[in-house]
Amino acid sequence: MGNKRYEIVEGGGITTPKGFKAGGLHCGLKKTDRHDLGVIVCDVPATAAAVYTTNLFQAAPLQVTREALGVDGILRAVIVNSGNANACTGAQGDADAQAMQANAAEALGVSKNQVAVASTGVIGELLKMDRVNSGIEKLPAKLRADIQGSDDFCQAILTTDLVKKVSCVSLTANGRQITIAGAAKGSGMIHPNMATMLGFVTTDALIGAPLLQEVLREVTNVSFNMITVDGDTSTNDMLVAMASGLAENDELTRSHPDFEAFVDGLRHVCEELAKAIARDGEGATKLIETTVIGANSDDAAQAIAKTIIGSSLVKSAVFGADANWGRIIAAIGRAGQPVNVGTVDIRLGDIVVLEQSRPIPFDEEIALEYLKGDTVGINVNLNMGNGQATAWGCDLTYDYVRINAAYRT
Amino acid sequence: MGNKRYEIVEGGGITTPKGFKAGGLHCGLKKTDRHDLGVIVCDVPATAAAVYTTNLFQAAPLQVTREALGVDGILRAVIVNSGNANACTGAQGDADAQAMQANAAEALGVSKNQVAVASTGVIGELLKMDRVNSGIEKLPAKLRADIQGSDDFCQAILTTDLVKKVSCVSLTANGRQITIAGAAKGSGMIHPNMATMLGFVTTDALIGAPLLQEVLREVTNVSFNMITVDGDTSTNDMLVAMASGLAENDELTRSHPDFEAFVDGLRHVCEELAKAIARDGEGATKLIETTVIGANSDDAAQAIAKTIIGSSLVKSAVFGADANWGRIIAAIGRAGQPVNVGTVDIRLGDIVVLEQSRPIPFDEEIALEYLKGDTVGINVNLNMGNGQATAWGCDLTYDYVRINAAYRT
Repeated sequence: MGNKRYEIVEGGGITTPKGFKAGGLHCGLKKTDRHDLGVIVCDVPATAAAVYTTNLFQAAPLQVTREALGVDGILRAVIVNSGNANACTGAQGDADAQAMQANAAEALGVSKNQVAVASTGVIGELLKMDRVNSGIEKLPAKLRADIQGSDDFCQAILTTDLVKKVSCVSLTANGRQITIAGAAKGSGMIHPNMATMLGFVTTDALIGAPLLQEVLREVTNVSFNMITVDGDTSTNDMLVAMASGLAENDELTRSHPDFEAFVDGLRHVCEELAKAIARDGEGATKLIETTVIGANSDDAAQAIAKTIIGSSLVKSAVFGADANWGRIIAAIGRAGQPVNVGTVDIRLGDIVVLEQSRPIPFDEEIALEYLKGDTVGINVNLNMGNGQATAWGCDLTYDYVRINAAYRT
Repeated sequence: MGNKRYEIVEGGGITTPKGFKAGGLHCGLKKTDRHDLGVIVCDVPATAAAVYTTNLFQAAPLQVTREALGVDGILRAVIVNSGNANACTGAQGDADAQAMQANAAEALGVSKNQVAVASTGVIGELLKMDRVNSGIEKLPAKLRADIQGSDDFCQAILTTDLVKKVSCVSLTANGRQITIAGAAKGSGMIHPNMATMLGFVTTDALIGAPLLQEVLREVTNVSFNMITVDGDTSTNDMLVAMASGLAENDELTRSHPDFEAFVDGLRHVCEELAKAIARDGEGATKLIETTVIGANSDDAAQAIAKTIIGSSLVKSAVFGADANWGRIIAAIGRAGQPVNVGTVDIRLGDIVVLEQSRPIPFDEEIALEYLKGDTVGINVNLNMGNGQATAWGCDLTYDYVRINAAYRT
């Protein structure tokens, strides 16, 4: 990203950009007493954009959100529940998602068409709407404009996640301070093209909905779409962005002098959330960052990086701190992309293990020490062209199996 | 397969077809005292065929075998080691594979060009050729035409496999008995398009090499290419078939009245070996058999069946005996194939869990009992067309992670 034209806001959250409040509470969808219902509200009509899962089976709330955004690209609020995905729930599921939207709109005093809905959790079970509805009634009293509101919301969207995921940056446009923040949940079913993740971006930038949509998609392709936990994609993934415009900058366009700074800041927020999702993958003990350079194209580099990061054998080896580069080269070789089989370099962090496709002796003790760290870099140079990409994932552990062997019970 | 035109030969092995001897011994490539060097020899020049991994990085022995078969489609022997894949070993690896071929030819008294070579094990380390060579010298004394020869060979090709894999059938052509047998090793890196598997088929049928090649490829596509353990494919996969012709049938052609019986028998052998590989996947506790019917095409059904069987979430759920059909429908939805999202039926064995894409209440206790069995069927009907396919895989377990976290050590 070269010279950074944005600042990281330590301690910031989705309520940091001007105009946003958030909150969360426990309404009874989760068996624990953790929050399971959350809301973000904008004081003013926010321009909005969203990207959705590519899975053919899309959950009811996605359709409701899509329709809301389709009206005029404006949102006032997004209501989210965890503990139940409201997916594969038929006509009743559609009605329940619509009721969530209508009831949240009424409780918050905004137009129904300006409320987005998101759900995450078990597939194929009907929502306990009595609990959702009584939760929605109590939500307005929980709204806060400070960081506690952001925290409560972040907790409300977690399922098997362990850690709240939030990121915040600021930058200057026309001498005005713009803030961009994001919150996300992930865990299992995390794979390129969205996966079981929900993401929420708030900003006080002034930007039109169509351009926000374009930028959101571009940034998603190099952030959320470059992570994988287990290769599965879900029925419920959604990333929603809302821009309040209260920073009062001149409206952002592609020719605005600070447009690139805005994109860089948004990319930073989305990359941080994507990496946090990968690091907090089900059962994960470490983040794996795979960078492929020297490919024929960025697309080829993306496909190869994703294949490496998605390999169960590579992921298991990293869990075991085993410098098994043979599995990395086997993954490169099955990615379906052009590769010169004689010119591949592989480094684990800075440790060269393969050069021009030939094994290089390395100190196993040093490699073991490196692989035991909490972030492992797999760096590949195909020495063919200028294509490059980075993908993120996590190790495959006993706990992944434990968590997913008994998710419903 | 309709009426079976072949008989299963209980207790048969790769030495059962006329003309074949086999053997195995421990030469020192494995750290345990298990066999790690094996050979199959044909008393006469056998017509032969082979299919290979699609991985771009192909191990040295594959090139040697390809060249041997390219000469005239005739083999007299195949020499195999386990414990070391001789992959990514550069020019020295090529020389070592050629030396294995030449030394085996000399020890067995056959032409070098009629010896195939296969290796399986760790990638990127040079073979200890002194051990291989002294093993090859001792192999002729270990050759046996009885089932012990087949058993010794089967043990010699195992890596992390637990169980020897063998299958044998017989049929009649022109009043002559034809026998077809196969042996295989699998375990990790098992995925459609070969994967880390070695397979060896022997038969006494009289069949030309070009037709044997065609049939072997067709049968591979519906057997070995329909299994997955972990989505990884290896650098070393190879399936070699040798036909001695000693059954003295009229040479098989596509118009031979018993040609289909031969294909069915070969398919049975390959399917049994494929299922045995899936069931014995690293850490597996059960076989998963996924059948997709009602697809737009067989290709679409194949892709969907493979996506289901390859889903880490589905595999974990089966390990935990959790009837989590939401993960099955999520896998169907991301397979990249045409699916009518409103007409999907899913059964676990005979237990209907989804009909016309709507959840059907089922008895969780009965489902739990079924999922605890050693074979789990996932049956999908898309209700769209006549395309169908079956794929095999295994559950994802703690032991998969344990085995692969420390493979090299």
